[in-house]
Amino acid sequence: MSAEYLAAAVQLNSGEDKRACLRRATGLVEQAAEKGAQLVVLPELFNGLGRFSRLVSAAESIPGPTSDAMGQLAARLKITLLAGTIAEQSEAVGRAYNTSLLFGPDGQLIARYRKIHLFDVHLPGRVTVDESRWIQAGDAVTTAATPLGNFGLSICYDLRFPELYRRLADQQGEIFFVPSAFTRVTGRAHWEVLIRARAIENQAYVIGANQCGRHPPDLETYGNSLIVDPWGEILARAADDEAVILAKIDLQRLRQVRQQLPALNQRRLN
Amino acid sequence: MSAEYLAAAVQLNSGEDKRACLRRATGLVEQAAEKGAQLVVLPELFNGLGRFSRLVSAAESIPGPTSDAMGQLAARLKITLLAGTIAEQSEAVGRAYNTSLLFGPDGQLIARYRKIHLFDVHLPGRVTVDESRWIQAGDAVTTAATPLGNFGLSICYDLRFPELYRRLADQQGEIFFVPSAFTRVTGRAHWEVLIRARAIENQAYVIGANQCGRHPPDLETYGNSLIVDPWGEILARAADDEAVILAKIDLQRLRQVRQQLPALNQRRLN
Repeated sequence: MSAEYLAAAVQLNSGEDKRACLRRATGLVEQAAEKGAQLVVLPELFNGLGRFSRLVSAAESIPGPTSDAMGQLAARLKITLLAGTIAEQSEAVGRAYNTSLLFGPDGQLIARYRKIHLFDVHLPGRVTVDESRWIQAGDAVTTAATPLGNFGLSICYDLRFPELYRRLADQQGEIFFVPSAFTRVTGRAHWEVLIRARAIENQAYVIGANQCGRHPPDLETYGNSLIVDPWGEILARAADDEAVILAKIDLQRLRQVRQQLPALNQRRLN
Repeated sequence: MSAEYLAAAVQLNSGEDKRACLRRATGLVEQAAEKGAQLVVLPELFNGLGRFSRLVSAAESIPGPTSDAMGQLAARLKITLLAGTIAEQSEAVGRAYNTSLLFGPDGQLIARYRKIHLFDVHLPGRVTVDESRWIQAGDAVTTAATPLGNFGLSICYDLRFPELYRRLADQQGEIFFVPSAFTRVTGRAHWEVLIRARAIENQAYVIGANQCGRHPPDLETYGNSLIVDPWGEILARAADDEAVILAKIDLQRLRQVRQQLPALNQRRLN
Protein backbone atom coordinates (compact mmCIF):
# COMPACT_ATOMS: atom_id res chain seq x y z
CA MET A 1 0.00 0.00 0.00
CA SER A 2 1.28 3.49 -0.89
CA ALA A 3 1.69 5.34 2.39
CA GLU A 4 2.05 8.73 0.71
CA TYR A 5 0.67 10.13 -2.54
CA LEU A 6 -1.01 13.19 -4.03
CA ALA A 7 -4.79 13.46 -4.20
CA ALA A 8 -6.80 16.07 -6.07
CA ALA A 9 -10.29 17.51 -5.89
CA VAL A 10 -11.72 18.99 -9.08
CA GLN A 11 -14.16 21.87 -8.68
CA LEU A 12 -16.58 22.42 -11.56
CA ASN A 13 -19.33 24.73 -12.70
CA SER A 14 -21.48 22.13 -14.46
CA GLY A 15 -24.53 23.12 -16.49
CA GLU A 16 -26.97 21.21 -18.63
CA ASP A 17 -24.73 20.62 -21.67
CA LYS A 18 -23.43 17.15 -20.95
CA ARG A 19 -20.74 17.17 -23.64
CA ALA A 20 -19.33 20.48 -22.43
CA CYS A 21 -19.37 19.18 -18.83
CA LEU A 22 -17.50 16.02 -19.76
CA ARG A 23 -14.97 17.97 -21.78
CA ARG A 24 -14.19 20.36 -18.93
CA ALA A 25 -14.14 17.60 -16.33
CA THR A 26 -11.76 15.56 -18.48
CA GLY A 27 -9.46 18.55 -18.93
CA LEU A 28 -9.22 19.20 -15.21
CA VAL A 29 -8.70 15.53 -14.37
CA GLU A 30 -5.84 15.52 -16.90
CA GLN A 31 -4.41 18.61 -15.24
CA ALA A 32 -4.56 16.92 -11.84
CA ALA A 33 -2.79 13.83 -13.20
CA GLU A 34 -0.11 15.97 -14.84
CA LYS A 35 0.55 17.53 -11.46
CA GLY A 36 1.09 14.08 -10.03
CA ALA A 37 -2.27 13.18 -8.48
CA GLN A 38 -2.80 9.43 -8.17
CA LEU A 39 -6.32 9.93 -6.85
CA VAL A 40 -8.76 12.44 -8.36
CA VAL A 41 -12.24 13.31 -7.07
CA LEU A 42 -14.93 14.96 -9.21
CA PRO A 43 -17.99 16.75 -7.78
CA GLU A 44 -21.64 15.66 -7.65
CA LEU A 45 -23.45 15.62 -11.02
CA PHE A 46 -20.22 16.60 -12.75
CA ASN A 47 -21.65 15.52 -16.12
CA GLY A 48 -24.75 17.70 -15.88
CA LEU A 49 -26.25 19.88 -13.17
CA GLY A 50 -29.56 21.62 -13.86
CA ARG A 51 -33.30 20.97 -13.74
CA PHE A 52 -34.10 17.67 -12.07
CA SER A 53 -36.51 16.81 -14.91
CA ARG A 54 -33.60 16.97 -17.36
CA LEU A 55 -31.24 15.08 -15.08
CA VAL A 56 -33.73 12.26 -14.79
CA SER A 57 -34.50 12.08 -18.51
CA ALA A 58 -30.75 12.08 -19.28
CA ALA A 59 -30.01 9.37 -16.68
CA GLU A 60 -27.62 6.67 -17.89
CA SER A 61 -27.15 3.00 -17.27
CA ILE A 62 -23.94 1.71 -15.69
CA PRO A 63 -22.04 0.67 -17.73
CA GLY A 64 -23.07 3.46 -20.07
CA PRO A 65 -21.53 6.40 -21.92
CA THR A 66 -20.28 8.51 -18.97
CA SER A 67 -19.23 5.49 -16.96
CA ASP A 68 -17.28 4.10 -19.93
CA ALA A 69 -15.63 7.45 -20.59
CA MET A 70 -14.53 7.77 -16.97
CA GLY A 71 -13.14 4.24 -16.86
CA GLN A 72 -11.15 4.94 -20.00
CA LEU A 73 -9.91 8.24 -18.56
CA ALA A 74 -8.72 6.54 -15.37
CA ALA A 75 -6.94 3.84 -17.40
CA ARG A 76 -5.33 6.33 -19.79
CA LEU A 77 -4.00 8.46 -16.91
CA LYS A 78 -3.33 5.45 -14.64
CA ILE A 79 -5.15 7.11 -11.75
CA THR A 80 -7.83 6.14 -9.27
CA LEU A 81 -10.87 8.26 -10.20
CA LEU A 82 -13.93 9.01 -8.10
CA ALA A 83 -16.34 10.03 -10.82
CA GLY A 84 -18.30 12.38 -8.59
CA THR A 85 -21.87 11.44 -9.28
CA ILE A 86 -24.06 10.94 -12.31
CA ALA A 87 -27.80 10.41 -12.67
CA GLU A 88 -28.25 6.63 -12.97
CA GLN A 89 -31.36 5.04 -14.43
CA SER A 90 -33.60 3.43 -11.82
CA GLU A 91 -36.56 1.04 -12.02
CA ALA A 92 -38.80 3.71 -10.51
CA VAL A 93 -40.69 5.65 -13.19
CA GLY A 94 -39.63 9.29 -13.37
CA ARG A 95 -36.72 8.87 -10.99
CA ALA A 96 -32.98 8.27 -11.10
CA TYR A 97 -30.31 7.37 -8.58
CA ASN A 98 -27.65 9.93 -7.73
CA THR A 99 -24.66 7.62 -8.06
CA SER A 100 -20.95 7.87 -7.38
CA LEU A 101 -18.54 5.65 -9.33
CA LEU A 102 -15.01 4.67 -8.35
CA PHE A 103 -12.57 3.48 -11.03
CA GLY A 104 -9.13 1.96 -10.49
CA PRO A 105 -6.02 2.82 -12.55
CA ASP A 106 -6.82 -0.11 -14.83
CA GLY A 107 -10.17 1.49 -15.67
CA GLN A 108 -12.24 -1.12 -13.83
CA LEU A 109 -15.25 -0.05 -11.76
CA ILE A 110 -14.30 -0.73 -8.13
CA ALA A 111 -17.35 0.62 -6.29
CA ARG A 112 -20.73 2.23 -6.90
CA TYR A 113 -22.55 4.23 -4.20
CA ARG A 114 -26.08 5.59 -4.49
CA LYS A 115 -26.80 8.69 -2.40
CA ILE A 116 -28.69 7.70 0.75
CA HIS A 117 -29.79 11.07 2.18
CA LEU A 118 -31.75 13.32 -0.17
CA PHE A 119 -31.83 17.10 0.04
CA ASP A 120 -35.32 18.44 0.70
CA VAL A 121 -35.04 21.95 2.06
CA HIS A 122 -37.13 25.10 2.09
CA LEU A 123 -35.28 28.23 3.17
CA PRO A 124 -37.78 30.88 2.08
CA GLY A 125 -36.36 33.21 -0.55
CA ARG A 126 -33.00 31.49 -0.44
CA VAL A 127 -32.96 27.78 -1.26
CA THR A 128 -35.75 25.40 -2.20
CA VAL A 129 -34.87 21.90 -3.35
CA ASP A 130 -36.96 18.70 -3.45
CA GLU A 131 -34.42 16.08 -4.41
CA SER A 132 -36.57 13.20 -3.18
CA ARG A 133 -39.25 13.94 -5.79
CA TRP A 134 -36.75 13.06 -8.53
CA ILE A 135 -34.08 10.91 -6.99
CA GLN A 136 -34.45 7.38 -5.66
CA ALA A 137 -32.47 6.92 -2.45
CA GLY A 138 -29.83 4.23 -2.13
CA ASP A 139 -29.43 2.14 1.00
CA ALA A 140 -25.98 0.55 0.86
CA VAL A 141 -23.12 1.98 2.94
CA THR A 142 -20.13 1.62 0.63
CA THR A 143 -16.39 1.34 1.20
CA ALA A 144 -13.61 0.13 -1.07
CA ALA A 145 -10.19 -1.24 -0.06
CA THR A 146 -7.58 -0.17 -2.60
CA PRO A 147 -3.78 0.17 -2.79
CA LEU A 148 -4.29 3.89 -1.99
CA GLY A 149 -6.18 3.18 1.25
CA ASN A 150 -9.68 2.30 2.34
CA PHE A 151 -12.16 4.69 0.80
CA GLY A 152 -15.56 5.61 2.23
CA LEU A 153 -18.14 6.94 -0.23
CA SER A 154 -20.70 9.66 0.51
CA ILE A 155 -22.41 12.45 -1.41
CA CYS A 156 -23.23 16.08 -0.49
CA TYR A 157 -26.25 16.10 1.85
CA ASP A 158 -25.01 12.86 3.45
CA LEU A 159 -22.49 15.14 5.17
CA ARG A 160 -25.17 16.15 7.70
CA PHE A 161 -25.53 12.59 8.98
CA PRO A 162 -22.60 11.62 11.22
CA GLU A 163 -23.93 8.06 11.59
CA LEU A 164 -23.06 7.34 7.95
CA TYR A 165 -19.40 8.23 8.55
CA ARG A 166 -19.35 6.09 11.71
CA ARG A 167 -20.46 3.17 9.52
CA LEU A 168 -17.74 4.00 7.00
CA ALA A 169 -15.18 4.12 9.82
CA ASP A 170 -16.52 0.79 11.17
CA GLN A 171 -15.80 -0.61 7.71
CA GLN A 172 -12.18 0.62 8.05
CA GLY A 173 -12.72 3.79 6.00
CA GLU A 174 -9.67 6.07 6.06
CA ILE A 175 -10.37 8.51 3.23
CA PHE A 176 -13.91 9.83 2.78
CA PHE A 177 -15.19 11.29 -0.49
CA VAL A 178 -17.85 13.99 -0.46
CA PRO A 179 -18.60 14.94 -4.10
CA SER A 180 -21.09 17.77 -3.71
CA ALA A 181 -23.28 20.45 -5.18
CA PHE A 182 -23.53 22.19 -1.80
CA THR A 183 -25.49 25.43 -2.15
CA ARG A 184 -23.96 28.80 -1.51
CA VAL A 185 -26.31 29.60 1.39
CA THR A 186 -25.93 26.32 3.27
CA GLY A 187 -22.30 25.99 2.22
CA ARG A 188 -21.27 29.28 3.74
CA ALA A 189 -22.90 28.27 7.01
CA HIS A 190 -22.04 24.56 7.23
CA TRP A 191 -19.65 23.13 4.60
CA GLU A 192 -16.26 23.66 6.23
CA VAL A 193 -17.45 22.85 9.75
CA LEU A 194 -19.07 19.57 8.73
CA ILE A 195 -16.20 18.45 6.48
CA ARG A 196 -13.70 19.13 9.27
CA ALA A 197 -15.90 17.51 11.93
CA ARG A 198 -16.17 14.26 9.90
CA ALA A 199 -12.37 14.28 9.59
CA ILE A 200 -11.76 15.00 13.28
CA GLU A 201 -14.30 12.62 14.81
CA ASN A 202 -13.34 9.73 12.52
CA GLN A 203 -9.66 10.65 12.22
CA ALA A 204 -9.92 10.29 8.47
CA TYR A 205 -8.95 12.26 5.38
CA VAL A 206 -11.94 13.98 3.79
CA ILE A 207 -11.96 15.12 0.17
CA GLY A 208 -14.87 17.42 -0.58
CA ALA A 209 -15.11 18.25 -4.31
CA ASN A 210 -17.83 20.83 -4.79
CA GLN A 211 -19.66 22.53 -7.63
CA CYS A 212 -19.26 26.32 -7.92
CA GLY A 213 -21.11 29.25 -9.46
CA ARG A 214 -24.58 29.34 -11.01
CA HIS A 215 -26.46 26.44 -12.57
CA PRO A 216 -29.82 26.33 -14.36
CA PRO A 217 -32.47 27.16 -13.46
CA ASP A 218 -31.55 29.03 -10.26
CA LEU A 219 -29.07 27.06 -8.18
CA GLU A 220 -25.96 28.71 -6.79
CA THR A 221 -23.25 26.49 -5.33
CA TYR A 222 -20.51 27.31 -2.86
CA GLY A 223 -17.22 26.11 -4.32
CA ASN A 224 -14.60 26.00 -1.55
CA SER A 225 -13.64 22.40 -2.28
CA LEU A 226 -11.55 21.08 0.60
CA ILE A 227 -9.02 18.41 1.42
CA VAL A 228 -8.76 17.91 5.19
CA ASP A 229 -6.43 15.66 7.17
CA PRO A 230 -7.29 13.33 10.09
CA TRP A 231 -6.45 16.05 12.64
CA GLY A 232 -8.96 18.37 10.95
CA GLU A 233 -6.40 20.62 9.29
CA ILE A 234 -7.27 22.07 5.92
CA LEU A 235 -4.58 20.95 3.47
CA ALA A 236 -6.07 22.57 0.37
CA ARG A 237 -9.02 24.78 -0.47
CA ALA A 238 -10.44 26.08 -3.74
CA ALA A 239 -11.94 29.54 -4.24
CA ASP A 240 -15.22 29.83 -6.15
CA ASP A 241 -14.08 29.15 -9.72
CA GLU A 242 -13.37 25.91 -11.52
CA ALA A 243 -10.10 24.56 -10.13
CA VAL A 244 -7.91 21.63 -9.23
CA ILE A 245 -6.59 21.47 -5.68
CA LEU A 246 -3.96 19.01 -4.51
CA ALA A 247 -2.78 17.66 -1.18
CA LYS A 248 -0.65 14.85 0.14
CA ILE A 249 -2.39 11.84 1.64
CA ASP A 250 -0.17 10.25 4.28
CA LEU A 251 -1.52 7.06 5.78
CA GLN A 252 1.28 7.01 8.37
CA ARG A 253 0.01 10.35 9.61
CA LEU A 254 -3.48 8.87 9.88
CA ARG A 255 -2.23 5.90 11.88
CA GLN A 256 -0.28 8.23 14.18
CA VAL A 257 -3.35 10.36 14.91
CA ARG A 258 -5.46 7.26 15.60
CA GLN A 259 -2.82 5.90 17.95
CA GLN A 260 -2.14 9.10 19.92
CA LEU A 261 -5.78 10.04 20.39
CA PRO A 262 -7.52 6.66 20.19
CA ALA A 263 -11.07 8.00 20.14
CA LEU A 264 -12.28 5.43 17.61
CA ASN A 265 -11.46 2.68 20.12
CA GLN A 266 -13.11 4.60 22.96
CA ARG A 267 -16.63 4.59 21.56
CA ARG A 268 -19.10 3.36 24.14
CA LEU A 269 -22.46 3.90 22.40
CA ASN A 270 -23.69 2.49 19.10
CA MET B 1 -42.44 27.15 28.12
CA SER B 2 -40.30 30.28 27.76
CA ALA B 3 -39.55 30.66 24.07
CA GLU B 4 -36.85 33.26 24.63
CA TYR B 5 -34.43 33.88 27.48
CA LEU B 6 -30.79 34.62 28.26
CA ALA B 7 -28.31 31.84 28.92
CA ALA B 8 -24.77 32.19 30.22
CA ALA B 9 -21.59 30.16 30.15
CA VAL B 10 -19.09 30.75 32.94
CA GLN B 11 -15.42 30.26 32.09
CA LEU B 12 -13.13 29.49 35.01
CA ASN B 13 -9.49 28.87 35.83
CA SER B 14 -10.02 26.29 38.59
CA GLY B 15 -7.14 25.02 40.67
CA GLU B 16 -6.86 22.66 43.63
CA ASP B 17 -8.20 25.00 46.31
CA LYS B 18 -11.83 23.96 46.45
CA ARG B 19 -12.99 26.88 48.57
CA ALA B 20 -11.38 29.41 46.26
CA CYS B 21 -12.93 27.64 43.26
CA LEU B 22 -16.40 27.69 44.77
CA ARG B 23 -16.06 31.34 45.72
CA ARG B 24 -15.06 32.40 42.21
CA ALA B 25 -17.67 30.19 40.56
CA THR B 26 -20.36 31.62 42.83
CA GLY B 27 -19.30 35.18 42.05
CA LEU B 28 -19.48 34.63 38.31
CA VAL B 29 -22.83 32.84 38.51
CA GLU B 30 -24.15 35.82 40.47
CA GLN B 31 -22.79 38.14 37.77
CA ALA B 32 -24.57 36.11 35.09
CA ALA B 33 -27.85 36.24 37.00
CA GLU B 34 -27.49 39.98 37.52
CA LYS B 35 -27.16 40.36 33.76
CA GLY B 36 -30.44 38.52 33.35
CA ALA B 37 -29.39 34.93 32.65
CA GLN B 38 -32.09 32.40 33.55
CA LEU B 39 -29.80 29.49 32.67
CA VAL B 40 -26.14 29.36 33.75
CA VAL B 41 -23.59 26.69 32.78
CA LEU B 42 -20.37 26.08 34.73
CA PRO B 43 -17.35 24.20 33.33
CA GLU B 44 -16.05 20.71 34.06
CA LEU B 45 -14.51 20.23 37.52
CA PHE B 46 -15.37 23.81 38.40
CA ASN B 47 -14.90 23.07 42.10
CA GLY B 48 -11.35 21.75 41.71
CA LEU B 49 -9.15 20.93 38.74
CA GLY B 50 -5.72 19.45 39.38
CA ARG B 51 -4.01 16.13 40.02
CA PHE B 52 -6.40 13.21 39.52
CA SER B 53 -5.24 11.67 42.82
CA ARG B 54 -6.46 14.78 44.65
CA LEU B 55 -9.70 14.95 42.70
CA VAL B 56 -10.50 11.39 43.61
CA SER B 57 -9.63 11.77 47.29
CA ALA B 58 -11.74 14.95 47.46
CA ALA B 59 -14.69 13.34 45.68
CA GLU B 60 -18.07 14.12 47.27
CA SER B 61 -21.35 12.34 47.67
CA ILE B 62 -24.52 13.71 46.08
CA PRO B 63 -26.18 15.26 48.01
CA GLY B 64 -22.99 16.62 49.57
CA PRO B 65 -21.30 19.96 50.21
CA THR B 66 -20.82 21.23 46.64
CA SER B 67 -24.12 19.85 45.46
CA ASP B 68 -25.93 21.51 48.38
CA ALA B 69 -24.17 24.82 47.77
CA MET B 70 -25.11 24.81 44.09
CA GLY B 71 -28.75 23.96 44.80
CA GLN B 72 -28.90 26.84 47.29
CA LEU B 73 -27.24 29.17 44.78
CA ALA B 74 -29.78 28.26 42.07
CA ALA B 75 -32.65 28.80 44.51
CA ARG B 76 -31.29 32.10 45.80
CA LEU B 77 -30.83 33.47 42.27
CA LYS B 78 -33.93 31.72 40.89
CA ILE B 79 -31.98 30.32 37.96
CA THR B 80 -31.52 26.96 36.30
CA LEU B 81 -27.92 25.98 37.00
CA LEU B 82 -25.82 23.34 35.28
CA ALA B 83 -23.18 22.79 37.91
CA GLY B 84 -20.48 21.85 35.40
CA THR B 85 -19.00 18.73 36.87
CA ILE B 86 -17.64 17.61 40.21
CA ALA B 87 -15.80 14.46 41.26
CA GLU B 88 -18.48 12.17 42.72
CA GLN B 89 -17.67 9.28 45.03
CA SER B 90 -18.00 5.87 43.39
CA GLU B 91 -18.09 2.29 44.72
CA ALA B 92 -14.88 1.53 42.84
CA VAL B 93 -11.82 1.87 45.08
CA GLY B 94 -9.54 4.73 44.03
CA ARG B 95 -11.97 6.10 41.46
CA ALA B 96 -14.64 8.77 41.19
CA TYR B 97 -17.31 9.65 38.66
CA ASN B 98 -17.00 12.90 36.73
CA THR B 99 -20.55 14.12 37.25
CA SER B 100 -22.66 16.98 35.97
CA LEU B 101 -25.56 18.27 38.09
CA LEU B 102 -28.56 20.23 36.94
CA PHE B 103 -30.55 22.31 39.44
CA GLY B 104 -33.89 24.04 38.87
CA PRO B 105 -34.73 27.56 40.09
CA ASP B 106 -36.24 26.02 43.23
CA GLY B 107 -32.87 24.48 44.06
CA GLN B 108 -33.97 20.91 43.38
CA LEU B 109 -31.65 18.50 41.56
CA ILE B 110 -33.30 17.83 38.19
CA ALA B 111 -30.71 15.60 36.53
CA ARG B 112 -27.33 13.98 37.13
CA TYR B 113 -25.08 12.83 34.28
CA ARG B 114 -21.86 10.84 34.67
CA LYS B 115 -19.29 11.33 31.89
CA ILE B 116 -19.43 8.40 29.50
CA HIS B 117 -16.33 8.92 27.34
CA LEU B 118 -13.03 9.27 29.20
CA PHE B 119 -10.02 11.18 27.92
CA ASP B 120 -6.98 8.93 27.42
CA VAL B 121 -4.59 10.63 25.07
CA HIS B 122 -0.85 10.68 24.43
CA LEU B 123 0.37 13.49 22.23
CA PRO B 124 4.11 13.27 22.86
CA GLY B 125 5.52 16.40 24.45
CA ARG B 126 2.13 18.11 24.35
CA VAL B 127 -0.69 16.39 26.21
CA THR B 128 -0.78 13.16 28.19
CA VAL B 129 -3.91 12.32 30.18
CA ASP B 130 -5.18 8.97 31.51
CA GLU B 131 -8.61 9.86 32.79
CA SER B 132 -9.81 6.26 32.79
CA ARG B 133 -7.23 5.31 35.46
CA TRP B 134 -9.00 7.60 37.92
CA ILE B 135 -12.53 8.11 36.69
CA GLN B 136 -15.31 5.54 36.54
CA ALA B 137 -17.32 5.92 33.34
CA GLY B 138 -21.06 6.47 33.42
CA ASP B 139 -23.40 4.75 31.01
CA ALA B 140 -26.70 6.66 31.08
CA VAL B 141 -27.58 9.07 28.27
CA THR B 142 -29.30 11.94 30.11
CA THR B 143 -31.82 14.56 29.09
CA ALA B 144 -34.10 16.78 31.17
CA ALA B 145 -37.35 18.43 30.10
CA THR B 146 -37.68 21.83 31.80
CA PRO B 147 -39.63 25.05 31.30
CA LEU B 148 -36.51 26.43 29.54
CA GLY B 149 -36.44 23.61 26.97
CA ASN B 150 -35.22 20.05 26.72
CA PHE B 151 -31.62 19.83 27.86
CA GLY B 152 -29.09 17.22 26.75
CA LEU B 153 -26.14 16.62 29.07
CA SER B 154 -22.58 15.84 27.97
CA ILE B 155 -19.07 16.55 29.23
CA CYS B 156 -15.86 17.58 27.43
CA TYR B 157 -14.39 14.52 25.66
CA ASP B 158 -17.94 13.31 24.89
CA LEU B 159 -17.88 16.02 22.23
CA ARG B 160 -15.87 13.72 19.94
CA PHE B 161 -18.67 11.14 19.83
CA PRO B 162 -21.52 12.26 17.56
CA GLU B 163 -23.59 9.19 18.43
CA LEU B 164 -24.13 10.56 21.96
CA TYR B 165 -25.69 13.75 20.58
CA ARG B 166 -27.87 11.71 18.21
CA ARG B 167 -29.20 9.91 21.31
CA LEU B 168 -29.79 13.23 23.03
CA ALA B 169 -31.65 14.50 19.94
CA ASP B 170 -33.68 11.26 19.85
CA GLN B 171 -34.68 12.09 23.43
CA GLN B 172 -35.92 15.51 22.21
CA GLY B 173 -32.78 17.39 23.29
CA GLU B 174 -32.79 21.02 22.11
CA ILE B 175 -30.02 22.59 24.18
CA PHE B 176 -26.83 20.63 24.75
CA PHE B 177 -24.41 21.36 27.60
CA VAL B 178 -20.70 20.70 27.19
CA PRO B 179 -18.96 21.69 30.46
CA SER B 180 -15.30 21.12 29.65
CA ALA B 181 -11.65 21.26 30.58
CA PHE B 182 -10.64 21.01 26.91
CA THR B 183 -6.87 21.30 26.61
CA ARG B 184 -5.19 24.13 24.78
CA VAL B 185 -3.61 21.87 22.16
CA THR B 186 -6.71 19.85 21.28
CA GLY B 187 -8.98 22.85 21.82
CA ARG B 188 -7.20 24.99 19.27
CA ALA B 189 -7.53 22.20 16.72
CA HIS B 190 -11.01 20.84 17.47
CA TRP B 191 -13.16 22.72 20.01
CA GLU B 192 -15.00 25.21 17.81
CA VAL B 193 -15.45 22.81 14.90
CA LEU B 194 -16.94 20.06 17.06
CA ILE B 195 -19.19 22.39 19.07
CA ARG B 196 -20.56 23.90 15.87
CA ALA B 197 -20.93 20.52 14.17
CA ARG B 198 -23.03 19.16 17.06
CA ALA B 199 -25.24 22.25 16.79
CA ILE B 200 -25.59 22.05 12.99
CA GLU B 201 -26.20 18.33 12.61
CA ASN B 202 -28.70 18.19 15.50
CA GLN B 203 -30.11 21.68 14.96
CA ALA B 204 -29.68 22.39 18.65
CA TYR B 205 -28.22 25.10 20.84
CA VAL B 206 -24.86 24.13 22.29
CA ILE B 207 -23.39 25.77 25.38
CA GLY B 208 -19.73 24.93 25.86
CA ALA B 209 -18.38 26.28 29.16
CA ASN B 210 -14.65 25.66 29.27
CA GLN B 211 -11.80 25.96 31.74
CA CYS B 212 -8.99 28.38 30.85
CA GLY B 213 -5.34 28.96 31.71
CA ARG B 214 -2.98 26.71 33.67
CA HIS B 215 -3.92 24.13 36.29
CA PRO B 216 -1.76 21.94 38.52
CA PRO B 217 0.36 20.02 37.83
CA ASP B 218 0.81 20.80 34.12
CA LEU B 219 -2.55 21.12 32.36
CA GLU B 220 -3.29 24.06 30.08
CA THR B 221 -6.88 24.58 28.95
CA TYR B 222 -8.20 26.47 25.96
CA GLY B 223 -10.90 28.85 27.19
CA ASN B 224 -12.97 30.05 24.22
CA SER B 225 -16.27 29.08 25.82
CA LEU B 226 -18.98 29.18 23.17
CA ILE B 227 -22.73 29.53 22.80
CA VAL B 228 -23.84 28.36 19.34
CA ASP B 229 -27.29 28.41 17.77
CA PRO B 230 -29.07 25.61 15.82
CA TRP B 231 -27.80 27.01 12.49
CA GLY B 232 -24.23 26.76 13.79
CA GLU B 233 -23.72 30.47 14.31
CA ILE B 234 -21.54 31.55 17.21
CA LEU B 235 -23.66 33.78 19.46
CA ALA B 236 -21.03 34.40 22.12
CA ARG B 237 -17.41 33.50 22.71
CA ALA B 238 -15.05 34.02 25.65
CA ALA B 239 -11.35 34.84 25.34
CA ASP B 240 -8.88 32.97 27.54
CA ASP B 241 -9.56 34.55 30.93
CA GLU B 242 -12.27 33.89 33.48
CA ALA B 243 -15.47 35.33 32.07
CA VAL B 244 -19.24 35.23 31.75
CA ILE B 245 -20.68 35.14 28.22
CA LEU B 246 -24.35 35.56 27.45
CA ALA B 247 -26.63 34.80 24.53
CA LYS B 248 -30.30 34.59 23.76
CA ILE B 249 -31.88 31.16 23.51
CA ASP B 250 -34.86 31.30 21.15
CA LEU B 251 -36.80 28.07 20.85
CA GLN B 252 -38.89 29.51 18.01
CA ARG B 253 -35.68 29.94 16.06
CA LEU B 254 -34.83 26.31 16.76
CA ARG B 255 -38.21 25.12 15.53
CA GLN B 256 -37.87 27.24 12.39
CA VAL B 257 -34.48 25.73 11.55
CA ARG B 258 -35.79 22.20 12.13
CA GLN B 259 -38.77 22.88 9.89
CA GLN B 260 -36.94 24.54 7.00
CA LEU B 261 -34.12 22.03 6.83
CA PRO B 262 -35.72 18.90 8.28
CA ALA B 263 -32.54 16.82 8.45
CA LEU B 264 -33.49 15.22 11.78
CA ASN B 265 -36.53 13.67 10.09
CA GLN B 266 -34.45 12.55 7.11
CA ARG B 267 -32.16 10.17 8.97
CA ARG B 268 -32.05 6.80 7.25
CA LEU B 269 -29.38 4.96 9.25
CA ASN B 270 -29.25 4.20 12.95
